[in-house]
This record gives sequence, structure tokens and C-alpha cells, in this order.
Amino acid sequence: MNFHTRKWIKPEDLNPNGSLFGGSLLRWIDEEAAIYAIVQLGNPRVVTKYISEINFVSSAKQGDIIEMGITAIAFGNTSLTMRCEVRNKITRKSILTIDRMVFVNVDEYGNPVAHGKTEIKFIEEQFAAEDN
Amino acid sequence: MNFHTRKWIKPEDLNPNGSLFGGSLLRWIDEEAAIYAIVQLGNPRVVTKYISEINFVSSAKQGDIIEMGITAIAFGNTSLTMRCEVRNKITRKSILTIDRMVFVNVDEYGNPVAHGKTEIKFIEEQFAAEDN
Amino acid sequence: MNFHTRKWIKPEDLNPNGSLFGGSLLRWIDEEAAIYAIVQLGNPRVVTKYISEINFVSSAKQGDIIEMGITAIAFGNTSLTMRCEVRNKITRKSILTIDRMVFVNVDEYGNPVAHGKTEIKFIEEQFAAEDN
Amino acid sequence: MNFHTRKWIKPEDLNPNGSLFGGSLLRWIDEEAAIYAIVQLGNPRVVTKYISEINFVSSAKQGDIIEMGITAIAFGNTSLTMRCEVRNKITRKSILTIDRMVFVNVDEYGNPVAHGKTEIKFIEEQFAAEDN
Amino acid sequence: MNFHTRKWIKPEDLNPNGSLFGGSLLRWIDEEAAIYAIVQLGNPRVVTKYISEINFVSSAKQGDIIEMGITAIAFGNTSLTMRCEVRNKITRKSILTIDRMVFVNVDEYGNPVAHGKTEIKFIEEQFAAEDN
Amino acid sequence: MNFHTRKWIKPEDLNPNGSLFGGSLLRWIDEEAAIYAIVQLGNPRVVTKYISEINFVSSAKQGDIIEMGITAIAFGNTSLTMRCEVRNKITRKSILTIDRMVFVNVDEYGNPVAHGKTEIKFIEEQFAAEDN
Repeated sequence: MNFHTRKWIKPEDLNPNGSLFGGSLLRWIDEEAAIYAIVQLGNPRVVTKYISEINFVSSAKQGDIIEMGITAIAFGNTSLTMRCEVRNKITRKSILTIDRMVFVNVDEYGNPVAHGKTEIKFIEEQFAAEDN
Repeated sequence: MNFHTRKWIKPEDLNPNGSLFGGSLLRWIDEEAAIYAIVQLGNPRVVTKYISEINFVSSAKQGDIIEMGITAIAFGNTSLTMRCEVRNKITRKSILTIDRMVFVNVDEYGNPVAHGKTEIKFIEEQFAAEDN
Repeated sequence: MNFHTRKWIKPEDLNPNGSLFGGSLLRWIDEEAAIYAIVQLGNPRVVTKYISEINFVSSAKQGDIIEMGITAIAFGNTSLTMRCEVRNKITRKSILTIDRMVFVNVDEYGNPVAHGKTEIKFIEEQFAAEDN
Repeated sequence: MNFHTRKWIKPEDLNPNGSLFGGSLLRWIDEEAAIYAIVQLGNPRVVTKYISEINFVSSAKQGDIIEMGITAIAFGNTSLTMRCEVRNKITRKSILTIDRMVFVNVDEYGNPVAHGKTEIKFIEEQFAAEDN
Repeated sequence: MNFHTRKWIKPEDLNPNGSLFGGSLLRWIDEEAAIYAIVQLGNPRVVTKYISEINFVSSAKQGDIIEMGITAIAFGNTSLTMRCEVRNKITRKSILTIDRMVFVNVDEYGNPVAHGKTEIKFIEEQFAAEDN
Repeated sequence: MNFHTRKWIKPEDLNPNGSLFGGSLLRWIDEEAAIYAIVQLGNPRVVTKYISEINFVSSAKQGDIIEMGITAIAFGNTSLTMRCEVRNKITRKSILTIDRMVFVNVDEYGNPVAHGKTEIKFIEEQFAAEDN
């Protein structure tokens, strides 16, 4: 799993008890998963269909840097299933895991359509080569 | 299930495809569930522990009014399990359901502590009486 | 008066003195009143026309749960006049009252049009019945 | 009346009907009035006490530039009463007027205290001189 | 240089170290410069092209009031170059200076077009006269 | 240069002309640079000191996915100088480049202190190994 987007926890992200507000974290993850799905499916029209098993393993506090990782675990005919982990970038301690996030590939009218993909497109490997 | 908090879907709540951004919806639900748990447990220190089975049944669009309903379904020793539904306020069409959201009652150091509650506190009935 | 939408006061809602920022509260009330008017008038096109007599009775602090109540007090030909109260959900202490908020029913060009309503539609009663 | 803070109406400021959301406008005004009161009273601890007679004269749309003007109209023992107008910066058409906004000068415990001011401090004139 | 828009630094504007988040400040400046350019060029379609030499002279903390000043320093054929300063409104201590911000006047397709302006339009002087 | 944080351009990120608001982009970059500096210097207390030469090469529109890349180009005694590029993730077209962003390492009182670093810490290589 590759980790991409990071966040620096600011006062605007806290719940009233002073730790990272879970709702803010869920908002960030949904965007990150949508981006991953759009890149993998090559279609800007994807919708969140199902999220299962979100475990809040530990919390984060003001000043922490967290990073989000997503990886595809199954390609359906019209869907893509992903696994997600959020962790502290410095300590690598896990903050949250999501076993399955299912996004569906839709057409311009919002109807599911086959995406024709069957495996992960390793954009990251291309990047690695390019960076040398 | 009683429905309380409502939202009027504004441009700031949309994803790039012009429908309600799932991440915004998750953020709203987490706050509503926290409020419900705080009121039921009589303790401002509650943390989201687990969310299971989120089904995005239908979408919402700009101008829609949605409402969120939460109800307790199980009282553990230190935890509270809730069910959630979000629906369109006008058409009553379901938008999202969550089978189980588990919040844990914690002390000032973040450690789980028994909350001593075993059933729903019917604040709503008191309100109804008061409103007459 | 029925109270619906609730808010959990987070750091993002505070003024620099550490209490609830009045401007945030006014923003929430305007949305809640718009929702109430849309539901009552059965028209998504309503505009805020006049607000009178806002009394900031007491403040709220981080971690407080507040709830907003709106009720119709007069139906004009094209307008709807509402009264509003915001209070602390736990202590029921009043935070803010607004004597009159006037919204106008408009057509697609923004011109006032008769709404044909003369009394409150008791959606809440229907809910109560349904909830049993 | 001098006009200071301006806003460029962006999609994030709109209501679902596509015009400036009244709640956003009220949030901006409350901040502008607080700033004016802090500068006039020389005390960072001021609280909104009362707002009367808000007239929404006309609306604003995406891309419009609006500007906010505040002026003191009465100095009480512990309070300051201001008048406010918001207008379109280009056309100068009035968007909103507020007859009286009352802020109270408080001590560190939130209790009203005399501010000792009796007239407007013309910071603007000093600025004008400095700018030449 | 005239100073217009002010901000009251709230918790939502802070970085995790408790001082004003530089990114928030840059966001505010970009809007203020866009407004200035639109007013000067008489065209709502302007785009940020180049920003040079941003010096963060000092910081700001929660509760501070800051004000932003912009002034035109050069008129190109399709561009406008501005200088910017942000300072503490009470102490007048400089917070940030930007030597040159270049905005370009564009047509409805985003292509640069001549704006026909060669000098600053002194709206402020008109205001001063009107205010007496 | 490695690219990490991505954004999916939503309506809330647009200027009134319908393209990505430059101020939002600057806010995102400042956070990404702060994160990079904190990780490299191993100190959560870093402040933006200087930004030079921001070129807005092209724009982004609603629905675009952009990614931000930062790399260290010079280590001073108390400072870190970075170069930044933002590009469209799909087309790889450059959106913005910043030649030099200088952050300073400070102590708990905000005074510059030596950070003792002289070269880039290749966290990414460690990740690559770990991901296999």
C-alpha cells in the first residue's frame, strides 16, 4: 500500500475534546478513495456505494501529521473495492483501517457501467522510474 | 427513530459531479451520532470506535433537504451502539443507512469507563409533553 | 416549538475569546429557518427578507450541545414570519431568541408570489405517529 | 460611514438557489462589527448583545464584490451601538442594512464593564493623513 | 496604500503551533488582490499570474486584528502589478509584504486581452468626499 | 521530486469564474511544505519565512485531480529551502511552480535554532522497500 495525501492536524480539525474529529477524517478518506478510483478506472464519474468495517484504532492530536493509504483489492464489473489505512506519518502507528470501500463506475446519468479494468494500474512505479 | 438535524444542500457540499459529497455526509453523521451518544450517556467524552456497513442507497442534489436519524440499539458496559438513517426530508427516500456505529465512553485520560446506562433516555417524549 | 438541528460546539466555531462565535450561530439559524420555510411553503425558492430583535441571552462554550427551534407565527400572502430560539440541549438555558424572521416565497425570477398557505403543517405530528 | 472589508462572492458562499447565502453574509457582518467595536473600545473582549432590524434590501450573485460599512451611533456606559450597511462595491446598490447592533464591553470573566469612551475614534482620518 | 479588508484571527485560522496559519493568510491576500484588480480594470475576469517575494515579517496570534493593503505599481498592456502589505491593525506592525503580484486581464475564453488602463482609479478619494 | 498530497477540485475550491481559486491552492501548498519541512527537520515547530517566484502556469477546473510535489534544495543552519510543483495528476500538465519556499526551524519561543540537518532524508525509499 502506498501512502499519498497527508494532513497536518490543525485546530479546525479537532472535536471539542481536543483530538482529531472522526468526521473530518472520514471526509478526507472519502475524497482520497474517490481520487484513487478515478485514476484506476480512468473515469471521473465514480460514486461511493458501500463502506464496511471502519476501525478507529487510535486517535491523533493537534500537530500530528497523518497520511492516507488506499489500495485496490477487487475489481467487479462496474465496481472497485479498496482497502484503506490512515496512520501517523512519524510514528507509523495505525489510526484507522477500513476493510472495504466500494465505489461504482457510472455514466453521465448516474447508471452503473462496466469499467473494463481487472488489475491495479501501477502509476506509482512509473513515478519511481521518472523520479530517478 | 426520531430525525433531528437537517441540512440544506448547498454548493459547498457538492462533489465535482454535482451531487452531495459522501465525505460531507459522513462528517455530518459522525457529529450527530456523537451528540446522541453524549446525551444518552450523560458524558461529553465519547469517541467513535467502530462503524459498520454504510450503504449509500441514493444520492442528494443541490437544494435538497436531508434529515438525520439516530437510535440506540445496544448498551454495552462502556459502549453504545447506534443505528443511523439519512433520508430526504420531503420525499422520505432513504439516502444512507448505517447498521452499527459504536461509541465508547471514556474518562479524562481517554480510557474506557463504564457508563451505567442500560436503556434509551426518552428525551423526546419529555419534549413532546413540554411542547403542548 | 419543536427543536430539531443540533450542533456540537467545536474549535472551528469559536471566536478569539473562546466562546461560540455569534456569526457562526447566525449562519446556522438562517439555514434552519430557510429549511423550515421551504417545508412549510412547499417551495424551494424562499429568501430571507427581514430579521428583527435578535437577543443574545447567554453564550455557549466548546463542547456544549445546542439545539435550534423555529415556529411559524404568521402567514402573509407571499411571506412567512417565524420565531426562533436557540438553547443549550442539556441545561435548556436560552442562548438566543429572535422575535421575527420573515422569509418571502419567490418564483424562479425572484419575484414574490402568493404561497397559498395559512397555517402550520404539522409534519412533526405525523412523525410522532410514524415513530411508534 | 466608511466601507472596509470586501468579499468576492464565490461558489462556497451561495445558497442552493444560486444567490448569496444570507447566513454567510450575517457571519461576515458579525466579524466586521466585532472588529469595529474592538478598535473603538480598545478592548479585545466584546460580545454581541443585540441586533435589530436587519433588512435584506437586495441580493448578490456569484462574482459580485460587496463591501461592508459600520459606524458607531451611540456610546453607552458598557455598550456600543453601531449601524451597518452592506452594498455592491461596483454599483453601490444597497444589499443589507442593520439599524442597530449592540456590543458590550466585558472583562475577563465575561461581565460588562464601563469602557470610558464617548465618541468615535477617527482612525480613518489618521490613515488618510498617513497615506499622503 | 489604503488598507481595507480586516480579519479577526479565530481558532479556525491557526496552525498547530497556535499562530496564524500562513496558508490562510495567502488565501485572504489572493482574494483581496483579485478584488483590487477587478475594480481597477473594470473586468470581473482576472487571473493570478505571478507572485514574487513574499516576506513573512512577523506572525499574528489568536485575537489579533489584521488588515490588508494593496496598491497598483504598474499597468502593463494586459496585466496589472500590485504591491501588498498585511499589518496588525492596532500596533501597525508589518506581518507580511509582497513586492509584486501580477494579475492578467482575460476574456471569456481565458485569453489575455488589453485592459486599456494606465493609472490608478482613485475610488478611495471619492469615498472620502462622500463620507463627509 | 515525489508527489504526495492530491486534491479533487470541488465547487468549494472555485473562484467566481469557475476555475480553481488561486488562494485555495496557495493554502494547500503552504500546508504541504510545512509537512515536508517538519518531516525533514524532525521538529514540529517550523515557520514559513519567505516564498519567491510563484508562477501560475495553467489553471485547473472542477473535477480535476491535482497533486503537489515538494523537494528540498538547500539546507541552511536554521532554514530549509524547498522547490514546489503542482500538476494535473492525469495529464501531468504543470499548474504552478515555486522556485524557493524557505521555512525556519524555531524553538518553543519562536526563535530560530540550528536544525543540524544537511541532506534529504529519503523516507520514500524506505516506503518503497516496505511496500514490496
